[in-house]
Amino acid sequence: MRLEEALKLIVITDKKLKPNVVKAVEDALRGGATSIQLRLKESSTREMIEVGKAVRKLTEDFGALYFVDDRLDVALATNADGIQLGPEDMPLDLAKSIAPNLIIGASVYSVEEAVEAERLGAHFLGAGSVYPTPSKPEAKVIGIEGLKELVRRVRIPVVAIGGITHSNVKEVLTTGVCGIAVISAVMAADDVESATRTLRELIDEELKKRRGFS
Amino acid sequence: MRLEEALKLIVITDKKLKPNVVKAVEDALRGGATSIQLRLKESSTREMIEVGKAVRKLTEDFGALYFVDDRLDVALATNADGIQLGPEDMPLDLAKSIAPNLIIGASVYSVEEAVEAERLGAHFLGAGSVYPTPSKPEAKVIGIEGLKELVRRVRIPVVAIGGITHSNVKEVLTTGVCGIAVISAVMAADDVESATRTLRELIDEELKKRRGFS
Repeated sequence: MRLEEALKLIVITDKKLKPNVVKAVEDALRGGATSIQLRLKESSTREMIEVGKAVRKLTEDFGALYFVDDRLDVALATNADGIQLGPEDMPLDLAKSIAPNLIIGASVYSVEEAVEAERLGAHFLGAGSVYPTPSKPEAKVIGIEGLKELVRRVRIPVVAIGGITHSNVKEVLTTGVCGIAVISAVMAADDVESATRTLRELIDEELKKRRGFS
Repeated sequence: MRLEEALKLIVITDKKLKPNVVKAVEDALRGGATSIQLRLKESSTREMIEVGKAVRKLTEDFGALYFVDDRLDVALATNADGIQLGPEDMPLDLAKSIAPNLIIGASVYSVEEAVEAERLGAHFLGAGSVYPTPSKPEAKVIGIEGLKELVRRVRIPVVAIGGITHSNVKEVLTTGVCGIAVISAVMAADDVESATRTLRELIDEELKKRRGFS
């Protein structure tokens, strides 16, 4: 699977919304998530590793990629495919030198940060926040136009993040991003599997149009 | 320097007690700390790495060892000498396989945990809590007799931790430990350098006696 394919729909864990993280991940994968990002800000390292090992196994079974938010130690300990690094996390170049085989996603909030992350060797970008979002209320909102500009300015794949829902996902994909990352749209749903499936269908429809197959 | 020599006096950082962590580390080193353990539970990874790089530089200048609490990623990113791992952190054997060159200290709270940590390849133990301690009020208290028994049961060096002060450090050293680790005794003092120096003098006096030089 090409990296862009795997970045179509990244589902990020949220222990507050779904305390049984492994179950939520399995449901998201059944629904068609192409990547899982493990994000467990307030857990112990031991717990992150235990959950991460289960996520590693599940993503393998479903042919999805497995990323870890922030924690390179957990990524290495659980044999993750990649790591997602933001401005408060380990610098990209340092992470690359410690773990040259990991796929590195950079979280960026502006065109300048995007260009710099590409320069430092990020393999893809998570760019946002597209819309205001309950999962990260303090995040800067870049908007649809900001996202379009950002996509134009880099050569690496861009994934949109922040406030993306079933109702705006098609608009988001018109910006040229290769996919989306979501927390609330899936983790706040009663039925994680079905919320993921609907999102995935909308994404596949829109990406098919882009390729001119419809 | 033999590992045991470097374990005589481990000073652990505490950002709540001394918000300028780097300054506190420098003061502790001036006072005679033989090792520094960076413990920054609530900081971002980026901040841990920035502070860790400064601590790496300072410990080198003073000929002391530099350990990181819990975070293998920060230890690798800042070229630490070692890492301190407790029951909630990365399993010892996993840490050893990821970073075979790091000195691994295991935090243990009973004879059973001590024996198991030695079996898994820990290079030394941090054993406690010797006394009740304000830095970790929930920690199990092993006491002086418990510590003596623990020291007898393993071959690797043991460092005592938990509630150790200027008034009880000599009693602690009678248990056969090679040194002590402290937070409050140094970080809660108005003058970190002088609090460290007094502790170091008491330790040197007691260890000299043990070697029969007095």
